[in-house]
Amino acid sequence: MTPIRSVGFVGLGIMGKPMARNLLKAGFSLTVASRARAPVDELAAEGAAPRESPGDCAEGRDAVITVLPDSPDSEKVILGENGVLEGASKGAVVIDMSSIAPAVSRKIGGACEAKGVDFLDAPVSGGEPGAISGQLAIMVGGKKDVFARAEPIFQALGKSYVLCGGHGAGNTVKLANQIVVAANIEAVSEALVFARKSGVDPQVAFEAIRGGLAGSKVLEAKAPMMIGGNWEPGFRLRLHQKDLANALTAAKEAEVPLPVTALLQQIVTALVVNGNGDLDHSAIARFIEDMAQTTIRGK
Amino acid sequence: MTPIRSVGFVGLGIMGKPMARNLLKAGFSLTVASRARAPVDELAAEGAAPRESPGDCAEGRDAVITVLPDSPDSEKVILGENGVLEGASKGAVVIDMSSIAPAVSRKIGGACEAKGVDFLDAPVSGGEPGAISGQLAIMVGGKKDVFARAEPIFQALGKSYVLCGGHGAGNTVKLANQIVVAANIEAVSEALVFARKSGVDPQVAFEAIRGGLAGSKVLEAKAPMMIGGNWEPGFRLRLHQKDLANALTAAKEAEVPLPVTALLQQIVTALVVNGNGDLDHSAIARFIEDMAQTTIRGK
Repeated sequence: MTPIRSVGFVGLGIMGKPMARNLLKAGFSLTVASRARAPVDELAAEGAAPRESPGDCAEGRDAVITVLPDSPDSEKVILGENGVLEGASKGAVVIDMSSIAPAVSRKIGGACEAKGVDFLDAPVSGGEPGAISGQLAIMVGGKKDVFARAEPIFQALGKSYVLCGGHGAGNTVKLANQIVVAANIEAVSEALVFARKSGVDPQVAFEAIRGGLAGSKVLEAKAPMMIGGNWEPGFRLRLHQKDLANALTAAKEAEVPLPVTALLQQIVTALVVNGNGDLDHSAIARFIEDMAQTTIRGK
Repeated sequence: MTPIRSVGFVGLGIMGKPMARNLLKAGFSLTVASRARAPVDELAAEGAAPRESPGDCAEGRDAVITVLPDSPDSEKVILGENGVLEGASKGAVVIDMSSIAPAVSRKIGGACEAKGVDFLDAPVSGGEPGAISGQLAIMVGGKKDVFARAEPIFQALGKSYVLCGGHGAGNTVKLANQIVVAANIEAVSEALVFARKSGVDPQVAFEAIRGGLAGSKVLEAKAPMMIGGNWEPGFRLRLHQKDLANALTAAKEAEVPLPVTALLQQIVTALVVNGNGDLDHSAIARFIEDMAQTTIRGK
């Protein structure tokens, strides 16, 4: 098996652009394509070769990476007309690093293998800062030998990468991750609104509980945002809405009732419907604040 | 203000007994009383003076500590016949380290002050191991000068102690803590059952998400228990049920709707009703397991 040297990269959004840049820095030969022209030009100025379509971008490459918003995008860009699979060479690896429905990853993986192209689903966690610093956590689904071949790519993009199972397993674990994160944000929201309306300074409550069993990454990252009334993304609520919807669809297929995830999906939907979709997901707290007619910051 | 040297200690249960022992070790003169005779005899053999009633135990002491199961117990033992307040000297400090309803702490605090006795509510987090090792987190409600006077006691029992506000504020923050812990356990439960039924090894999912934003003390402590099917307490579900019930009562008084806490309280109640009350609170996972007709450990 020849090592991966040439990579096609499709999708230069908030996450994709810095990830593509890290591959350039790591010495990969890069072709790039994206819906918007500006990031393509930007990467071209840094040494990437611009391409018009996903299919063009994939042509003759050892690997093709896609970083896209949701399941329909991955399906269209990889399997559609002028898509990645049309251009990809036999024996190439398609690595979809989008966070999408596991069932769609399995479908795309099957279609790739039917044409002699390998496939990995490899969604990431760590947001824009992790994408920029090359410190993403990467959750991978696919075959062991394909995973091993893609390791140099994951090394350039992430601080950790774990093979979680076959096609779709990367996205299954990403959804498990998003379930935990959403519930932990809701937990901190309820605790801090409860403290505020009970007459306790939320900052004091935060400091009193952070060292014990209530301690979490979410508490450390999001409590200060809630206390400051700062909802700058970070990770947008509308993306977490998509993830929770995908989680519930996947859970239905797997025959798992997820009562709290379902409630959270409704809460996040209420927030998005009310115009909060582009706030950070810590703004889940605003739902509890609004219901209690207060704010955690006490204004 | 004379420093606290002599302490009455009422309630030598799983938490109280090792806490009393740590005060003996720290050099305080101790009288002890408890419903059960055995721990009183045990502590007497180690240098404490046994007493028959809470009132006797409080007589002539600089401070009186109570460690009891729930609000009615604190109310009865402190305010009732032969209770702590009957025996307590003017100027003494009553420190109720039970986890109870904040409103009851305020009532007890008011009754104490009306008789010239100071009061702190000071519930703890850290469980039996923290009680034994003197590493509890202590959340305190009361007056600043009274808190300062009690610091030598807190130093002997805990690794951290925070004054959270006036009477009841300690228990308010303890309830906020328990809200976060219950929701975080539920989150891990839903994520791991979802992974298992989606065909992903829960151990792999745990390892893939623990380093990112989903990371938490609960994930580290409870995921291995769930994966092992080990529900040894730890902290019993029936006590968490009590805390969630107290949280919802306090939230109603404070006019805060807590939708996820309310759902969790129902889930925990279902588990306790079905005979799981003496399992560790990580057994919240059993509710999701039962609904999905699976187990996280895959049997």
